[in-house]
Formats: sequence, structure tokens, C-alpha cells
Amino acid sequence: MPEFFNVLPPDEARRLLFDHLTHRTAGQTIAVQEALGRVTLRAVHAPHALPAFRRSTMDGYAVRAADTHGASESLPAFLSVVGEVPMGAPASVELGVAEAALVHTGGMLPDSADAVVPVELTQRLGDGAGFPHEIEVFKAMALGQNVLQVGEDVAAGAQILPVGHLLRPQDLGGLLAVGITTLEVAARPRVGILATGDEVVPPEQAPGPGQIRDINSYTVAGLTEKAGGIPVLGGIVPDNLHALQEAAERMLSGCDMLVLSAGSSVSVRDVTVQVVDGLGEPGVLLHGVATRPGKPTIVGVVDGKPVVGLPGNPVSAMVQYDMFGVPAVYRLQGVMEPPLRGIVWARLAHNVASETGREDYVPARLESEGDSLRAVPVFGKSNLIYTLVNADGLIKVPLNKGGLLAGEWVEVRLF
Amino acid sequence: MPEFFNVLPPDEARRLLFDHLTHRTAGQTIAVQEALGRVTLRAVHAPHALPAFRRSTMDGYAVRAADTHGASESLPAFLSVVGEVPMGAPASVELGVAEAALVHTGGMLPDSADAVVPVELTQRLGDGAGFPHEIEVFKAMALGQNVLQVGEDVAAGAQILPVGHLLRPQDLGGLLAVGITTLEVAARPRVGILATGDEVVPPEQAPGPGQIRDINSYTVAGLTEKAGGIPVLGGIVPDNLHALQEAAERMLSGCDMLVLSAGSSVSVRDVTVQVVDGLGEPGVLLHGVATRPGKPTIVGVVDGKPVVGLPGNPVSAMVQYDMFGVPAVYRLQGVMEPPLRGIVWARLAHNVASETGREDYVPARLESEGDSLRAVPVFGKSNLIYTLVNADGLIKVPLNKGGLLAGEWVEVRLF
Repeated sequence: MPEFFNVLPPDEARRLLFDHLTHRTAGQTIAVQEALGRVTLRAVHAPHALPAFRRSTMDGYAVRAADTHGASESLPAFLSVVGEVPMGAPASVELGVAEAALVHTGGMLPDSADAVVPVELTQRLGDGAGFPHEIEVFKAMALGQNVLQVGEDVAAGAQILPVGHLLRPQDLGGLLAVGITTLEVAARPRVGILATGDEVVPPEQAPGPGQIRDINSYTVAGLTEKAGGIPVLGGIVPDNLHALQEAAERMLSGCDMLVLSAGSSVSVRDVTVQVVDGLGEPGVLLHGVATRPGKPTIVGVVDGKPVVGLPGNPVSAMVQYDMFGVPAVYRLQGVMEPPLRGIVWARLAHNVASETGREDYVPARLESEGDSLRAVPVFGKSNLIYTLVNADGLIKVPLNKGGLLAGEWVEVRLF
Repeated sequence: MPEFFNVLPPDEARRLLFDHLTHRTAGQTIAVQEALGRVTLRAVHAPHALPAFRRSTMDGYAVRAADTHGASESLPAFLSVVGEVPMGAPASVELGVAEAALVHTGGMLPDSADAVVPVELTQRLGDGAGFPHEIEVFKAMALGQNVLQVGEDVAAGAQILPVGHLLRPQDLGGLLAVGITTLEVAARPRVGILATGDEVVPPEQAPGPGQIRDINSYTVAGLTEKAGGIPVLGGIVPDNLHALQEAAERMLSGCDMLVLSAGSSVSVRDVTVQVVDGLGEPGVLLHGVATRPGKPTIVGVVDGKPVVGLPGNPVSAMVQYDMFGVPAVYRLQGVMEPPLRGIVWARLAHNVASETGREDYVPARLESEGDSLRAVPVFGKSNLIYTLVNADGLIKVPLNKGGLLAGEWVEVRLF
């Protein structure tokens, strides 16, 4: 184990992890329609301009702006409507002096037109069907008014998405709009998850006296999935160095990341440290993060892949995995800055004690209070999964604060 | 069409929609491990207490608290350690007066013990291996100290999840912890999506002059998926009443909800209104919402199922679908209050103009500025998909505000 500090504040701990995390998943080409939540493998550029032709943004008349100059309510311009631009077809009608063409929202502008008069600024004269017919225009149009220019949405060749971009619905729309229907994305990282503990049994088994069901494998799997990873569950390994070492090696070689949900007693933690160090270089980077819950977290890297040893109790395990594991799952796909977390502000219902020099995360339930929210801390030992089930998020008590007072506005990170 | 107001503020519009939306998806039983993001069909109760036995929260010694009374650094209590509680096994060791048992974090408490002394508050005397051996205890323990009581996490029979609850990773953990491995959830709603417009071609087709690619079908599909729905793409329907009516009827009968992404010209909008009214009762509830972008949205209900007619331009379509479609997809699964949106606060970089009496949503990019964020409005006509691609969220300008000033703190809804 290299000579690092044993206990670090979370930001420094994350930086240390990321400095060593060099592994990335491979690339694969998929249909853009299937790419929601996936990550771009390289920057994407627009193959052509969007829109590819000048379009009207209004229902109205395509005109030459000069023909409307000086027009007003009291002194309208008179134009002759010589045809209609059908939707989805070329604008074949050509305008001479004082001529206009009927055009719909999204319709193509005739070459000779350079503005659109909205229909509500005009009045039709006479009532004969067909073309030509006369209209009055009550307002002067500027050059380009109510017209979407070629490339106004995106220019030909412009970068439309950077590398390492997490794809949202609008990004799929942007890609499809310029005809990009397949895309190279990062493969979803495989995250190996091992539970240890002689007291731990699978959830489908009735635990005997002294035994409990494995739940950390599944909460970690859920958080992994939400970050785009594929959880690979390796089951429950007995509490001994040899068995854990063997299982860890096997899992890491077939995965992009390894999570050990270890027992929380000191002796078991020591075994986890030995196992991580035994997997390869650099091994354990730190064992201990200055947070509550979750101090005894082990963070390591082996051959560029992240290895995280979580405390056995379920609240610490989830909060710590969210803090180190989830950003690592994103990083493996090339996302350097994980998406902004959902955060809401709420008024604190009770005092919360803390210690300076430690980041505390206090589970809280959110209740409506008029137009704003009230954060009610869910107190409970960090062994209790139901403190998280009953919570909507975590109140962060910053490193340098000794506590929070009832009535204070606090930041609640939705969880 | 019933006699409702034509243009409503978004909150009232949503209420009107929900008052008529009575349809729900069927139930299905699935494995809890596969239930992330699904919704409970009924309330769930704990089949047994958790923990099911008294557990130690520390590495240390199980004791009878009375035996430590009066103990201090200068006047320690002397106890005889008569055995160890192995992890995952019954605590068979019994304690007499002034006796203790070695116990690990999570280990079972012997029946006769009622507190745990952490190892760091003790000192072992002598160095012989095996039991019994003597320890000094330097602090008095209270009854129950460092012990998790039976049912302290959740009591037998207690409601652990309400009906209509969207399942998060911690909820799966909570269910598995009490041995619930399968669960009745709401089926994922099938959302039929039809695009219309004579100018619209599929994304894989090269558009001719005057033509554009369909993107709304895919952005709506993406938002639907994120809300737990199954998008059912019905393709592009020609702009005529008969064709659209037929396609809409077919889609609605096989789906739980229908979305029409219509052209945005007035005449096409009128066709959509006729189609929705022709599908059944009550039909169109409103056509027009007091927001920008997105005013010409059509919201209806047919036989209890939601029907939404979106404006053709991509930004309006996404913002409006997010406002009405997404909550409806949740509601169909029984989620009465959609999950809190991710919201961040940021300092506004430029003035933003608005009109009172209208809710404006201004796309904005978020930039770091020291410890806080700066919201830079992405100005662009609402026809431009790349205003959303380049944005991280939407700044909300409330109904009664005439605009926002540079430097103001604003709420940005992550999008």
C-alpha cells in the first residue's frame, strides 16, 4: 500500500481515486434510439446544417420585406398572393415585386422571399377562391423576420456533442435531426459485487439466529444500474482471506470494477485491506473517509480499475457507494463530471448535531409546508436500512460546521 | 368538448387532467431484484421484525450493564470473559454475575446480556489464550447501550412501503431484508406516440427540400422511458383527419395513453382537436396552457386515458410533455406525486424578459463559479432542438413575474 493518508475528506478521497482510475470500458456502436443514458465515445459533429432550408416560424405570407416598408394600420401595403407553399415540398412559387405566397409554420421560404408576415397582421381583400388574391399588410417586416435561417439551429460541421457526454432525450433528438441514427458509445461497465460475512445469507433464505440477509449486494446493484453500469452479483463469500482473495481475483478479471461489501468489524476490515492490496498495484489508496455515516470505507485501484470496500451496515454502504462508487461507474464510461444531483432546499425541522472536521449526511423526510419544504431528520442508527427507506434525501452538514439549527435552510440531496 | 377554459395556468391544467384521468395499468408480480423504478400496487407490511434478534453495534463485549455501574478510568470494573459469540450463529454462551462475552459488530447478544462495552473502553489483563480471561472496563454502560433491539429497524407488521411508491435502491434493500423477494407492481404503461405532418420524414430518411426529420417521437419516447413507461412508436401519419383519426383509435385501444405530436400550424391543431374529441368522452379538456414555450398544447382524456397533443416544434414539445405527459405516465402507475425534480440554484448571468400571467421556461447552461453555479440562458427560438441540447436545465419565471435580473438567484430545473 502506498503511503497515503489513512482518513481523508471526501473531496480529496475522490480526487485520489480519480488520479489512479485510468481504466475505461470499450466502445460499441448502437442505434441512437437505444442510446438514452449512454455516453458518447467521441465528439459528434453535424453532417449538415439544421435547418437545411429557410423555414417560416409563423402561419402567414412569405414576402420581400422591402414590399412592406412603411406599412401601418392606417396605411397598409397591398400585396398579391400568387400561390401557396405546400408543407413538405419545395417552395416552387417565385415572387415578383409586391407579391406574396401563403406559407405555414415550418414551411419552406421561396428563394425570392426574405420575411414572413403573420396572418394576424394581414387582411384578405375579396372572397374569391384561388390565386392570385389581394391582401393588406398592416406592419412593416424587417429582413429575416419570422424566418429560421439555414444553420440557425446548428451549423454544418459544428460540434454537437462532446466526448464523454451522458445522452438525454433532447440529445437523441438533436442527433436524429441531422440524420445520425447510430452512434459509438462507451460499453456499460460491469461492476462485480461480492458480499462477505459468516452471518450473511441470501435474501430468499430464512436466516437462523445470528444470521441476516444480504441486502448490500442489491442496493449497490440498484445504484450501479442507475449510473449506467451492469451489476454482476458474485454472491456471499465466507469471511476468510483465501476465499475472499480468490473470489475477488476472479470477479475483477471479468469486470471493470469491484465492490466488496464486507463485514464491519475491525478484523474483517483488515482482511479486506489485505485482499485489495493482494490484487495488484497500487492497491488500497485509503481506508477511511471523514464522513458519517461511512468512515471505514476502503478505496483502491488495481490495474487502473476501481475497487471499493464498503462498511457492512446498509446505510453507510449506500451513502459511501453513492459518494465513491457511483462517480467511478460514470468515470469508467468517460463521464468526467457526473450529472448534477437533484438538490432541493428545505427548512430544517429539528436541530442536528455534528462534529467539525467531518462531513455528515443525515437522512431526512421532506414535507410540504405551504410553498416550501420542511426537512424532518430521520434519526436512526446507521445499521438501519429503514432510515433510508423512510427518507427522501440526505442533509449535508459541511466539514467545518458543528451542527445545524432548526429553522435553518438546508440543502437536501435527493437519494 | 365540455365547457372548460381554453387557456389555463399549468397547475390548474394539470389538476383538470388528473381529475379525469382514472385509468391505471394492471398489476404484475416480479422479482424484487428487478423492481428498481417500478411502483408498488399495494401497501407492503413487514412479515417479521428487523432485526429479528438483538445485535451488537460494536466490536466489544456483551455484558450485563449492572456489572459496569460506577466503572471509570480510575476505578475500572473487572469482568471475566467466558466465551465468544461467533458471527452468524446463536449466542449460546450465558453470562453469570461479572461475566462478559466477546462479540463482534452485528453479532447476536446472549439472552443474559443487556449492553455492549466497545473494545476501546476495555483493557485485557494477562496474556493467556482462550477463555476465561479478565478485562478491565473503564466506563459504565447504560441498559441497551450499543445494542440494536429486536424490531428497532422495523417492527413486525409495520407498513414498510405505501401503495403507489416508486421503488429506489434502498427500498429493494428494505424488502429483501425482511425476506420479500417478489412484489406486485403496476405494469409499465404503454404510451402510443404518433407524429403527424406532411413535411415530416423518418430520421433514417434524407429529407428533401421542405422536409424535416421526425424527432419529437424520440424525445417523447426518451422522457416516457425515464418515467417508467414503454414508448410504442406509431410512425408518421399524413396530415388529414381521416388518417389521423384511424391511427389514433388503433393506438389508443392498444395503449394506456396517447401522444400526438402534431404540426404547429393552426389548421393542423384544429384537426388534432377534432381527432381527440372524436376518440370518446370527455375528449379535449383544454387547448392552450399559459406557458412559454408551449402555449398551443392540447390536453384531453378519453375513457380515463390521457391524450396529449403536442406542438410540432421540438422545444415546446419536450417542455410540454415534461409538464403534462410525464406526470400522467407516473399517474397511470399509481404514483400520485411524481418524484421531486432535480433543482439547483444558480446566479443568473443575463436579464431575462417575460410577461406576467404566463410561466416561462428559459433553457440555461450551468457553469461553475467558485463554489456556486452561474445560469447562462441559452437564447434561441423554440423551434431549435439545439437550445435544449446546449442547456442543462430550465429557469422557471413564475406566473406573476415580469422578468428576472442578472445576478438574481434563480431555480434551474435540471432537464
